Amino acid sequence: MLKQVLEQGREAADAAIERLLPPATEHPTSIHQAMRHSVFAGGKRLRPILCMEAGRMIAAASVVGSRTGSPAGSLPTGIEDLGGALEMLHTYSLIHDDLPALDNDDLRRGRPTCHKAFGEAIAILAGDALQTLAYEVLAQIACPAEASVSIIREIAHATGTINGMIGGQVVDLEAEHQKPDIATLEYIHRSKTAALITASVVSGGMCAGATAADIRHLRTYGQSIGLAFQIVDDVLDLTQTSEQLGKTTGKDAAAEKATYPALFGIEESIRQADALADRACAELDEYGEAASTLKDLARFLVERKK
Amino acid sequence: MLKQVLEQGREAADAAIERLLPPATEHPTSIHQAMRHSVFAGGKRLRPILCMEAGRMIAAASVVGSRTGSPAGSLPTGIEDLGGALEMLHTYSLIHDDLPALDNDDLRRGRPTCHKAFGEAIAILAGDALQTLAYEVLAQIACPAEASVSIIREIAHATGTINGMIGGQVVDLEAEHQKPDIATLEYIHRSKTAALITASVVSGGMCAGATAADIRHLRTYGQSIGLAFQIVDDVLDLTQTSEQLGKTTGKDAAAEKATYPALFGIEESIRQADALADRACAELDEYGEAASTLKDLARFLVERKK
Repeated sequence: MLKQVLEQGREAADAAIERLLPPATEHPTSIHQAMRHSVFAGGKRLRPILCMEAGRMIAAASVVGSRTGSPAGSLPTGIEDLGGALEMLHTYSLIHDDLPALDNDDLRRGRPTCHKAFGEAIAILAGDALQTLAYEVLAQIACPAEASVSIIREIAHATGTINGMIGGQVVDLEAEHQKPDIATLEYIHRSKTAALITASVVSGGMCAGATAADIRHLRTYGQSIGLAFQIVDDVLDLTQTSEQLGKTTGKDAAAEKATYPALFGIEESIRQADALADRACAELDEYGEAASTLKDLARFLVERKK
Repeated sequence: MLKQVLEQGREAADAAIERLLPPATEHPTSIHQAMRHSVFAGGKRLRPILCMEAGRMIAAASVVGSRTGSPAGSLPTGIEDLGGALEMLHTYSLIHDDLPALDNDDLRRGRPTCHKAFGEAIAILAGDALQTLAYEVLAQIACPAEASVSIIREIAHATGTINGMIGGQVVDLEAEHQKPDIATLEYIHRSKTAALITASVVSGGMCAGATAADIRHLRTYGQSIGLAFQIVDDVLDLTQTSEQLGKTTGKDAAAEKATYPALFGIEESIRQADALADRACAELDEYGEAASTLKDLARFLVERKK
């Protein structure tokens, strides 16, 4: 059942991204090829899937509770494009993180990173362009203008400098070769990774007409699985090989990066990730059966092998 | 009169940007300092001024023509923030253009470029963050949600890869050390510079409730002054010293970049810029007195010395 959700979600997200990205033959071709190289590198499309399933849950709950919304079980109109925009933002952050001036990574998802394949100048611009295109797409999704504006505000804040993705990346860079400290580490993980995951869940709900109470539940769910996801990532970086993960592993230890396993050990890190998944699931209890897929996704994120 | 418009416009834009940017003491401080270093480097705030004056003209025309709108002479609500967002987008593009992998510039507006002052990693992220913050601001401007969504779509498209700012930057990079060709040169100038100038004018109009016909006039005005502006920039790069301009000059010739003077000579380039300013002014004739400031701005752009 979850396997099907993951596969169909990935296919729906890929189809949306394929439709939204300019073709590789569009002038100027180099930038469009670079954007496609990085976006179509075999990602799981986790953020679009979380977004779509959050939308589906809210739409279903709306029907049960006699609020207006899409029929139970179906996706809210336009949510695939929202998912596509989220994946573009995620990919832009990966392209820039991989640059020589930042993490200096040659491999990403088993393929040469954008700057390795297209040079640094085009990689910088391809990251920029994916961010720009994401907002162009968000301003065109088929939902009421008020919802679009809320979604854009939510996502822009989550990827910004204050408790958002860029803020987390800055603190991560500055924390290298320093003795890790719990507060800093949690700030990095919550900002760099969990913020966009949370915005994916929350914006999916907004696209389906979520109430303020729905958004509070989705936010807590998103923050919990987002942090759990990054803790598991830290553990996998330590326990898996580069071949298993399709990216260079062991880099955290080499860069003396602050990680959960470095601070708490592997077993305690896994225990904390499990507890966060429990917290996320409990938050959705009142949605009954409609929450089963988001709960399965929370479990999957802490049990995944890569 | 125009001097006052330029001064008051710059002050209004600076006040908005000061209010919208996180303080330099906000965690993480390095990125906020870097963003402020580049945004507060003494720019003329040309894009915000064009945006505000376009909004003022449409608001005035709305009153004359009995359409709903702000009173003649005053600025539409929220337009200073829109102008601030436009300046953030312009600054993000400058920070990334200046990077070693792109134009490799040490000086900008007479000060060290962002990467010279803060290092490459923070400069890349500061550019990213200014783009992100611009969209967060755009999703919060005080105008109807439908207008906000149209503004965001307009600006995102103008700064993207297809006939937009990034597309122009890519073709500019790839045209270095090649024999300049008129079609390519015009594509670069129209995309890299004129597109955001056009979006500044058009979005200012949208913020003031412009009709489809207003937007067509503003778009033609913007495209004409945008191209004229870049032609004059090319001429100044050739005729002024670095001290006069506050940035490294003569770089176009050194990089064998395609420029208007290289193709047409200085005199013919100036003649073309003047003709474009005429075209821009003629487009606004039907707005009568309300258009006088935008017309003065068109003349100023081709007659400026720096």
